[in-house]
Amino acid sequence: MAVLLSTDPAAMEDWRAALLAEDPGLDIRMFPDAGDPAAVEAAVVWTSHDMAELRRYPNLRLVVSMGAGVDHLLRPPGPPPGVPVARLKDARLTQGMTEWVLLNVLRFHRQDLEYRALQAARRWEELPAPDTASRRVGILGLGELGGAAAAALAALGFPVMGWSRSPKDRPGVERFHGPEGFDAMLRRADILVCLLPLTPETRGILDRRALGLLPHGAFLLNAARGGHVVQDDLLAALDGGRIAAAALDVFEPEPLPPDHPFWSHPRVVMTPHAASITIPSSAAPQVVENLRRARSGRPPLNLVDFGAGY
Amino acid sequence: MAVLLSTDPAAMEDWRAALLAEDPGLDIRMFPDAGDPAAVEAAVVWTSHDMAELRRYPNLRLVVSMGAGVDHLLRPPGPPPGVPVARLKDARLTQGMTEWVLLNVLRFHRQDLEYRALQAARRWEELPAPDTASRRVGILGLGELGGAAAAALAALGFPVMGWSRSPKDRPGVERFHGPEGFDAMLRRADILVCLLPLTPETRGILDRRALGLLPHGAFLLNAARGGHVVQDDLLAALDGGRIAAAALDVFEPEPLPPDHPFWSHPRVVMTPHAASITIPSSAAPQVVENLRRARSGRPPLNLVDFGAGY
Repeated sequence: MAVLLSTDPAAMEDWRAALLAEDPGLDIRMFPDAGDPAAVEAAVVWTSHDMAELRRYPNLRLVVSMGAGVDHLLRPPGPPPGVPVARLKDARLTQGMTEWVLLNVLRFHRQDLEYRALQAARRWEELPAPDTASRRVGILGLGELGGAAAAALAALGFPVMGWSRSPKDRPGVERFHGPEGFDAMLRRADILVCLLPLTPETRGILDRRALGLLPHGAFLLNAARGGHVVQDDLLAALDGGRIAAAALDVFEPEPLPPDHPFWSHPRVVMTPHAASITIPSSAAPQVVENLRRARSGRPPLNLVDFGAGY
Repeated sequence: MAVLLSTDPAAMEDWRAALLAEDPGLDIRMFPDAGDPAAVEAAVVWTSHDMAELRRYPNLRLVVSMGAGVDHLLRPPGPPPGVPVARLKDARLTQGMTEWVLLNVLRFHRQDLEYRALQAARRWEELPAPDTASRRVGILGLGELGGAAAAALAALGFPVMGWSRSPKDRPGVERFHGPEGFDAMLRRADILVCLLPLTPETRGILDRRALGLLPHGAFLLNAARGGHVVQDDLLAALDGGRIAAAALDVFEPEPLPPDHPFWSHPRVVMTPHAASITIPSSAAPQVVENLRRARSGRPPLNLVDFGAGY
């Protein structure tokens, strides 16, 4: 079977090498050089790939998305109907996200923005000691990424709350679900971490109303998708003091235009969609396993549920 | 028994209240109002207290130091000979130090200084993904604080090495000891964390020779005592690139004078001896337990070993 590979040109060769290291017999076609469309039976694609283009391959029986999120696959017209789509659940992806969340929770918890400003002013001044046991962290989304972040924060002694669509059992995490649970958790979240999938239900979920539920001076972390946050509402909440500071990895659009107010906002810490990066050598075994499953007619691992949107 | 309390004026009332909450019967004398010196049988003191002054109390039978470090007690002339000195081992102290170490290890591991500079320049640029499994962290000192930091870093997936004076069993931590072990660990430490006690043997231990053993571009964290680091040697190592960046909580002298080059160094992250702060309400039960032990003639918990220097 021929496999179509499509990603950023800079990453193409790394992916090809990683997949061939797992299965030297793979017939890899590097987009746009697909060769005979009828030979292509699987496509391994990054978010930049035009899904409508995949309808060109009449014998396609598997699409593998290179990231954890799948919202780009769900936008019309979407991949060819009836073709199973798998996403990655990679330990390295989860590790990267957990680190990003811990770094930014600790940055805010430990008054690091204030200490950076004091250093810049050459001022030796000790701030009141923060109390971990009373700093409540609320996590939106308790899937692979949210669950791992919740466990790491709970292990450090933070009281952790989690909100998800369906009830999930997470030891040590106070659980919330449904619209009422959403409001109840936000009212108590000193630090709110968004790790939700982006679906029609979650687009714009962090708007003026939701941000207004948070305790005054709360912190926001978003490493899910830019579309979860109404960016102008967040700016207003930062300027009004409702939100003390925000750490943002995702934006709408990306790259964020150079004139956007986030870049120079003293209470916004930005990373360029780099919280959790797919590393080809780490992800390749899972992709190759799914190619084997497609070849033998078995369902893929980590099949995307288009009804649920993740 | 009367207890002499001596700390920063700002903290005096918090300490008094916390001790009385544990034992309302305590007769607390707030320095310098000690009353009759012969009535004072125990002293609870911060580093700022002049140890020679304690020789004024003929019936003193316990000194409790409010911090984890005891180097200030060991400087001549020191506390009265034959009086047991106890230090604090407080979960909150350990928690604070673990958070400070994690924040700064993650800051460097996740290229945060570079991402802050990119944000300031309004540049959207993804840096190569860091690999946790190959980022070796070396910890100098595996006591209460070093052991907890080692465990937290190992739980996050970092390969952790530890150097201590006496062999200590720490699961998941590669152990080094002695002068040869010191050199061997430093040669492999991508991030070096100093949590040693300050003794004549460890003063100036991080000098030009030691810093020169580290891999080029290593990171240094010091939250032990300023005296462990030869500050001019560190500046030279930063400027030469041997050390990529340093996070420093402790200095010589403290407060660090406003004209010291650390304040404005772009690769130095400073906090004002605030990594781990003793919180009176958290520490009071342990202090009161030691007062009870002194009253009944039993040896205190966490007795300082003057021979070992910690």
